[in-house]
Amino acid sequence: MISVAIVGGTGYTGVELLRLLAGHPQVQLRYITSRGEAGRAVADLFPSLRGHVDLCFTEPDDWLLQEVDVVFYATPHNVAMGSVPRLVDAGIRVIDLSADFRLRDAALWESWYGEPHACPALLEDAVYGLPERHREMIREARLVACAGCYPTAVQLGFMPLVAKGLVDLDTLIANAASGVSGAGRQAKIDNLLSEAADSLKAYGVAGHRHLPEIEQGLADSAKAPVRLTFVPHLAPMIRGIHATLYGRLTDTAATENLQQVFEDFYADEPFVDVLPSGTLPQTRSVRGSNRCQLAVTVPQSRDTVVVTSVIDNLVKGAAGQAVQCMNLMFGLPETEGLSMPGLSP
Amino acid sequence: MISVAIVGGTGYTGVELLRLLAGHPQVQLRYITSRGEAGRAVADLFPSLRGHVDLCFTEPDDWLLQEVDVVFYATPHNVAMGSVPRLVDAGIRVIDLSADFRLRDAALWESWYGEPHACPALLEDAVYGLPERHREMIREARLVACAGCYPTAVQLGFMPLVAKGLVDLDTLIANAASGVSGAGRQAKIDNLLSEAADSLKAYGVAGHRHLPEIEQGLADSAKAPVRLTFVPHLAPMIRGIHATLYGRLTDTAATENLQQVFEDFYADEPFVDVLPSGTLPQTRSVRGSNRCQLAVTVPQSRDTVVVTSVIDNLVKGAAGQAVQCMNLMFGLPETEGLSMPGLSP
Amino acid sequence: MISVAIVGGTGYTGVELLRLLAGHPQVQLRYITSRGEAGRAVADLFPSLRGHVDLCFTEPDDWLLQEVDVVFYATPHNVAMGSVPRLVDAGIRVIDLSADFRLRDAALWESWYGEPHACPALLEDAVYGLPERHREMIREARLVACAGCYPTAVQLGFMPLVAKGLVDLDTLIANAASGVSGAGRQAKIDNLLSEAADSLKAYGVAGHRHLPEIEQGLADSAKAPVRLTFVPHLAPMIRGIHATLYGRLTDTAATENLQQVFEDFYADEPFVDVLPSGTLPQTRSVRGSNRCQLAVTVPQSRDTVVVTSVIDNLVKGAAGQAVQCMNLMFGLPETEGLSMPGLSP
Amino acid sequence: MISVAIVGGTGYTGVELLRLLAGHPQVQLRYITSRGEAGRAVADLFPSLRGHVDLCFTEPDDWLLQEVDVVFYATPHNVAMGSVPRLVDAGIRVIDLSADFRLRDAALWESWYGEPHACPALLEDAVYGLPERHREMIREARLVACAGCYPTAVQLGFMPLVAKGLVDLDTLIANAASGVSGAGRQAKIDNLLSEAADSLKAYGVAGHRHLPEIEQGLADSAKAPVRLTFVPHLAPMIRGIHATLYGRLTDTAATENLQQVFEDFYADEPFVDVLPSGTLPQTRSVRGSNRCQLAVTVPQSRDTVVVTSVIDNLVKGAAGQAVQCMNLMFGLPETEGLSMPGLSP
Repeated sequence: MISVAIVGGTGYTGVELLRLLAGHPQVQLRYITSRGEAGRAVADLFPSLRGHVDLCFTEPDDWLLQEVDVVFYATPHNVAMGSVPRLVDAGIRVIDLSADFRLRDAALWESWYGEPHACPALLEDAVYGLPERHREMIREARLVACAGCYPTAVQLGFMPLVAKGLVDLDTLIANAASGVSGAGRQAKIDNLLSEAADSLKAYGVAGHRHLPEIEQGLADSAKAPVRLTFVPHLAPMIRGIHATLYGRLTDTAATENLQQVFEDFYADEPFVDVLPSGTLPQTRSVRGSNRCQLAVTVPQSRDTVVVTSVIDNLVKGAAGQAVQCMNLMFGLPETEGLSMPGLSP
Repeated sequence: MISVAIVGGTGYTGVELLRLLAGHPQVQLRYITSRGEAGRAVADLFPSLRGHVDLCFTEPDDWLLQEVDVVFYATPHNVAMGSVPRLVDAGIRVIDLSADFRLRDAALWESWYGEPHACPALLEDAVYGLPERHREMIREARLVACAGCYPTAVQLGFMPLVAKGLVDLDTLIANAASGVSGAGRQAKIDNLLSEAADSLKAYGVAGHRHLPEIEQGLADSAKAPVRLTFVPHLAPMIRGIHATLYGRLTDTAATENLQQVFEDFYADEPFVDVLPSGTLPQTRSVRGSNRCQLAVTVPQSRDTVVVTSVIDNLVKGAAGQAVQCMNLMFGLPETEGLSMPGLSP
Repeated sequence: MISVAIVGGTGYTGVELLRLLAGHPQVQLRYITSRGEAGRAVADLFPSLRGHVDLCFTEPDDWLLQEVDVVFYATPHNVAMGSVPRLVDAGIRVIDLSADFRLRDAALWESWYGEPHACPALLEDAVYGLPERHREMIREARLVACAGCYPTAVQLGFMPLVAKGLVDLDTLIANAASGVSGAGRQAKIDNLLSEAADSLKAYGVAGHRHLPEIEQGLADSAKAPVRLTFVPHLAPMIRGIHATLYGRLTDTAATENLQQVFEDFYADEPFVDVLPSGTLPQTRSVRGSNRCQLAVTVPQSRDTVVVTSVIDNLVKGAAGQAVQCMNLMFGLPETEGLSMPGLSP
Repeated sequence: MISVAIVGGTGYTGVELLRLLAGHPQVQLRYITSRGEAGRAVADLFPSLRGHVDLCFTEPDDWLLQEVDVVFYATPHNVAMGSVPRLVDAGIRVIDLSADFRLRDAALWESWYGEPHACPALLEDAVYGLPERHREMIREARLVACAGCYPTAVQLGFMPLVAKGLVDLDTLIANAASGVSGAGRQAKIDNLLSEAADSLKAYGVAGHRHLPEIEQGLADSAKAPVRLTFVPHLAPMIRGIHATLYGRLTDTAATENLQQVFEDFYADEPFVDVLPSGTLPQTRSVRGSNRCQLAVTVPQSRDTVVVTSVIDNLVKGAAGQAVQCMNLMFGLPETEGLSMPGLSP
């Protein structure tokens, strides 16, 4: 059994981690911390977990965390980097769902997050937690920086194209929409049902923090610099990310083979599902599941390829991906505890 | 392994049965029939099941159905009663999710459904599939008539009160609301998102087919006739039933003990969860789970008791309840394949 | 032209008042106050009002308010009672959309709101702003206390029955559901889309502040004490209140005439629409309109009458009702500025 | 008074036309036809119109239509072209909300709609009903072919850029999402709330019928051929179109002036509202209004411009635009009957 602690379990990635870990046959949940809710039963805050999680929230405490095999951080950015170094030094493995260790370049991190990075030396050690890209490195990692939600949907959609050199790298466009749970369990007027329901809007058009993360990842895949226009949107739904990706084909003769390119690229991936030609994904099909569903189309057989890619932002975009990384790190079957189909309708 | 067939798997109870059975460790899914979709891959119709269910729909065929251990009917009413008698004669166990065998009185059935019953003799044999009420009979049943969605939420909420004689049986009121999936996967204008979203309405106030089923069940519990006013509503959500139940207390001195009465009544039930005093259930906490969550309150300490009761109409109100019955019928642990927490948010 | 000021215009009743008053041909909007947003353009906060409202929010200031003909309070409770007395003394007419002056009994107010009332002497002067009940008094009123949202839907539904003595006054039940905008434009986790969408829950079952207001109003209509069980629910929609009302008929012979009783009772009301027998209202039909739509049914021809009543909580339940009262107070046609149909779909 | 008939008033554009025309001070509504609903009161089908529209649906009849000043077609494609020629010959002015007369090239129409055009000669006469582009021609038109919903949002967003030669015309991308009402009031499983709520999907990626319409319009504005990649999406909301438009700047030096270019371009337009720099539109701000709100951004000050554009698909994208055209055709103020703010929240 893997002994597990969660730091910061009161948000949506926290409750989703709890849902998945509660049903994972190889996990023993030991601690879950929250400064604000210490002493309160987890199932009191999240009634869906009554009978499934019997823990109470506890005060964050480095010593307790050092009793476990792995610590998940489900915190806002700028929290994990404060205590992760001590855990890593103590030999505890860490899976960080926040943005603290996703960028390798500390200066870039600082320019987007507006503050100094607390432990830039660790950035080099951290493995980017996108198993479809870094599976072997994740197995050995001491510190995994789980890929963000938009970055997962966008990279999985673009990877076959950029890795195979099929699209112009300077003119990539990612138009993505997220359910409101992506904004977290925080009391903000903008995310009230009365504000966000029955409406759609773009946000962060001038620049969103997931942009450098995606560009870094795609550049790795392409082995060349990449320039992306990324426009996120808020959609009136709870869960789900839908990414619509546009690339200019470098060789339009390749058009006919694109379906095969995608199917081959992901042939062995348990959680990436390339849909049959002519069908398109919808976010509800992956609701609650760890799957990414993808389709590739060349509209009007012209020179622009369109990939549509869907994930559940709280599962493959956060908690599920973290568990997938944990399975790899501890030598378990990669799909352990993650094989539930989507909840549809 | 239990060998299973499903008749009529193209509706929402069908896809939900498939989701649950695909993850059930003791089940081998053998056949799923549909006249309209015969030959089509199930996962083509329901992309959430890609990789989980590899069957194609087949034409309904009595002989194939006789090869399995149990047949689920996920059909509209008036279908099961046409072929169930032959299956039961052949020794095949049947779990009917439709309304065909829920009422013991054929004349009553005919008055509500407007047509003759095809096999009234079987009504006596059929066991009403509400495990919290008829667990032992379900174990031995040849034919289980699963309780309907509203009837499940309403009966579980009223049962402790009527069984203990705590409320007046002539003035019961059940005000219930269902998500739109309760209306089925049928092309009806009323259930379009553009019609049903951001709106609420009552329907069937003059008389709804679940009324005689609930009255029959509560009368059984009370061992006396029961008179219920039942008003269903359509709520702008996909899943979930919320029932708000009103009863006039026969003895207001009992008020203080009601919480204890409910907790005791359901102490051993794996799927009924009485919430702590002072909290109230919400449908999202049971989304995708087989659980009923309940709360009991006496507003202003007056003489009317209010029970609020929530289920997922497709799980505890249909497919989950059917699997729970199957577990009982085949001697499996009652919770096998049904232990997932709700998907929340 | 009527010169108007609004105190506290940053909430949902505020923006709805602005929408209605901006289109009212007899109104000149002069001031709108907000401590938190003073100096900010109204249309910056509410982009739907760009080009319709050119004012900026200003600091609350008694002197400015005394320059206008009428002041609307769209504030939380406990604000209006602080400054209304000075305005009334200065001869300014006041329409309060909050709860400060709705209850005539100061002790009752204090027991429900948990603090002393600042000007109990004014309670006697205040006219309860439900035109269908107090039209003539509203015309002359110095201070109108607009009826609350639930109280409007519930009283309009019950009034014909209690005024005519057709139901038992001790066993009334009002089961009501509101859209989330009823909870106001406040940053609360419970009202996030991720929490409130695709879910339904009851709240305030033990006691809700609208209970004494409704009981006071119905007792006035009945000319006798009334006992009500009132259970509000939060529905996953933006606007709308749906009330389902249950009463025990005192004379079941009256059943056949109930439709006529309702139609006669509301024959001259411009904003109460009794639907034809056999049809039921839905909240979307009154979205954005000042109308209440009603239906009356006796299920199974038994002894319980069910009235379903819908309003838009922000219009007939708040801002529209306030404008209707203003029209009466200033001798305008009652429907002036309020004649738009509902926005449907 | 303008005497008006509507052909095909049972869909969403029909009911929206009725809502707008019922409140239009210069309109007398004379006939509304429907084969399926002939004889039924309009307000029976659309309860929001009770007391606002007293007509019954009538059988379509050319003679009746010839008694009015203007006939609106709110029909599916392939209906108007059957009878419009006779009306035009009789001197009746026609406003067609369907797609029958939007493309000038009959061969192109036939290739997208898969059938011969019934009156190609009229295509030349028809004026494309986008007032911001063809205001003067609409004034004189006998037959106006109202711009489609996506085409309105996309063209208004791209027009300043293509008319001024600021973007490469070969690589335009329009990523747009529509509320479900855009799919019409038709009984289709895909548009059930249970299918479309809480989900997002692209559709028609390979080719959507609005593509040639948009390319034709933008080519007119650019006075040069245009190549567009257009990907529509279905969003889980009732109303609203959100278009996110991408163009490669031909001269990045122009970046700083883009806000001014847009403000100047639309300075005199009553229904196009360019938002202040740094703000972004959301569909709810234009719900129920005839307005298009726009924002222009150059992410990261690179070489791609992003325009976001929102309309209400049933108003500025259909019925409102038709009324705007009618106002122009009959010499009324262009905003007559169309000045309501958006319904928000």
